[in-house]
Amino acid sequence: MPLNHQILLVSRPTAQAGVDNFQLVETQTPALQDGQVLVRNHYLSLDPYMRGRMNDSRSYAAAQPLNEVMGGGTAGEVVESRCDRYRPGDLVVGMGGWQEYSVLDGTRPGVLRKVDTTHVPLSYYLGAVGMPGVTAWHGLVRICEAQAGQTVVVSAATGAVGSAFAALSRARGCRTVGIAGGPDKCSYATGELGFDACIDYKAHADAASLSKALKKACPDGIDGYFENVGGQVLDAVLPRMNVFGKIAVCGMISGYDGAPIPMANPQWILISRLKLQGFIVGEHMQDWPPALQELAALVKDGKLRPRETVSQGLASAPEAFLGLLRGRNVGKQLVRMV
Amino acid sequence: MPLNHQILLVSRPTAQAGVDNFQLVETQTPALQDGQVLVRNHYLSLDPYMRGRMNDSRSYAAAQPLNEVMGGGTAGEVVESRCDRYRPGDLVVGMGGWQEYSVLDGTRPGVLRKVDTTHVPLSYYLGAVGMPGVTAWHGLVRICEAQAGQTVVVSAATGAVGSAFAALSRARGCRTVGIAGGPDKCSYATGELGFDACIDYKAHADAASLSKALKKACPDGIDGYFENVGGQVLDAVLPRMNVFGKIAVCGMISGYDGAPIPMANPQWILISRLKLQGFIVGEHMQDWPPALQELAALVKDGKLRPRETVSQGLASAPEAFLGLLRGRNVGKQLVRMV
Repeated sequence: MPLNHQILLVSRPTAQAGVDNFQLVETQTPALQDGQVLVRNHYLSLDPYMRGRMNDSRSYAAAQPLNEVMGGGTAGEVVESRCDRYRPGDLVVGMGGWQEYSVLDGTRPGVLRKVDTTHVPLSYYLGAVGMPGVTAWHGLVRICEAQAGQTVVVSAATGAVGSAFAALSRARGCRTVGIAGGPDKCSYATGELGFDACIDYKAHADAASLSKALKKACPDGIDGYFENVGGQVLDAVLPRMNVFGKIAVCGMISGYDGAPIPMANPQWILISRLKLQGFIVGEHMQDWPPALQELAALVKDGKLRPRETVSQGLASAPEAFLGLLRGRNVGKQLVRMV
Repeated sequence: MPLNHQILLVSRPTAQAGVDNFQLVETQTPALQDGQVLVRNHYLSLDPYMRGRMNDSRSYAAAQPLNEVMGGGTAGEVVESRCDRYRPGDLVVGMGGWQEYSVLDGTRPGVLRKVDTTHVPLSYYLGAVGMPGVTAWHGLVRICEAQAGQTVVVSAATGAVGSAFAALSRARGCRTVGIAGGPDKCSYATGELGFDACIDYKAHADAASLSKALKKACPDGIDGYFENVGGQVLDAVLPRMNVFGKIAVCGMISGYDGAPIPMANPQWILISRLKLQGFIVGEHMQDWPPALQELAALVKDGKLRPRETVSQGLASAPEAFLGLLRGRNVGKQLVRMV
């Protein structure tokens, strides 16, 4: 059996997460039991939800146990199988965790699935045609109920979810406006991702200034908002929401590392009769097939080809993850291990 | 024509509303035009939404024009009519405003309606079997989607909306918990209104303490919350909400007079996948007939007999209204003018 490298969570952050919370270890991959599959992971997915799992407190994701391999989505190749459904050479995605090799139960539904890389690159199954893509789909379609001619806005616009959101909302005939950090991300958003406009939140000192910029970018107001960020960005968006506007609350990354950030003026919920709905895409499995089908078609047609930020080698995962929390990535953040 | 007294809004509050914002004037009621009805108002309804209308800023209610009669719901008796649908002696409810006599257009739908006082006291058509009752119904039934066995909570529990909410949620087999200000209100809530428990928010110094009391009163968590108050009360409720809990945002009276009060930890929306929905009952006219029918039946059966706080004489309206904003009323706040 091959030598494996794994990253464990060895301590919980008290405020900001740090590299000290993680530890790289070397192990032997165990012999397979009946039904098990050994996967060589090509890519590890890094996602904001992982920060919540590092805490012991109640969160939307169960706490990651200490001194165990950090959980996470992976894409790779089957190298050995004691399960009829998988053969060596099969390309698969699953929850393999922060490690080079994963032993997964091939008989349990939802643990592993084969993917077709004819038109979709393997890594995209962790991003645009994976969990982040379905997340964008659910928020846009089920919560915002976006209609042609409406204006929809997404924060963290150039991330994995934001990129998919742009392609999906354009396909529905919406005016699509992004919020991102820095001029490079914003020109990437409008130049490549298809956003009609993108606002650099870092160019605004406070929520009032950002809100003014949103007013200009959304002359007909905002009908649907997809929230990845929270804090000042949410404060800036709320006054711009149209009556009966809908907000899909997917993430509040601005408050993940440390103290929660208040919502300055919740009265807008009342004034504009807004709906705010929090969700986790794993609780809406019925949406995955139609969402993945649409996302794969968009990729095949060249309408969804987002960039990725790829760090090399498992050992780079903790730094890459901390960079994701600080918005250093453009598009899907991955770790490549081959 | 009879001599009339009216209360005008003559200035807008800069922070707290005050009696100086109002002015009592004496006028002659004008001669009726075709289609018009002269109503002698027995009761004027005082409601929290009126505070929003006193401001010039964007609110969920249109601003009250200066130097005009304050708008408001009224219940009274037709004394003269040039409209076929109404005859002197008819008991009616309508939007007569802060005045003793109102001239209303009887031909326009929704302006005036006749009511039957066989089983329901006239004043109840401004409270339990009126707008506040329908408000409670919409929040409980349409937004919280309350089911038997669930726990539902309402703030401002002994007000007009809270009283109706208790009867409606008990009829659905819910555990019903109130939040109110002071021990007298709380014992009234459990002793007369049918609440299973009622928490005195004034007995708690901060949201954490109030939240602890809620945990005790709601051992199975909270499935539906009807928000009238906002501020610290909302902060205390959020951590107690069950996964997929629903919050009907009807009012945030704690922030009406002065600066808006932040929501301390909006992350709960995400963590517990909550839905928050703001609403105004006037935008859901299809709910009025079934709601009024159910509310009238509850009154007739003795299951909804809330107290009222009645101030005497039109001149007392401004003080009574300011008292409502400060929570001095128990149940529906009315002004009696006969």
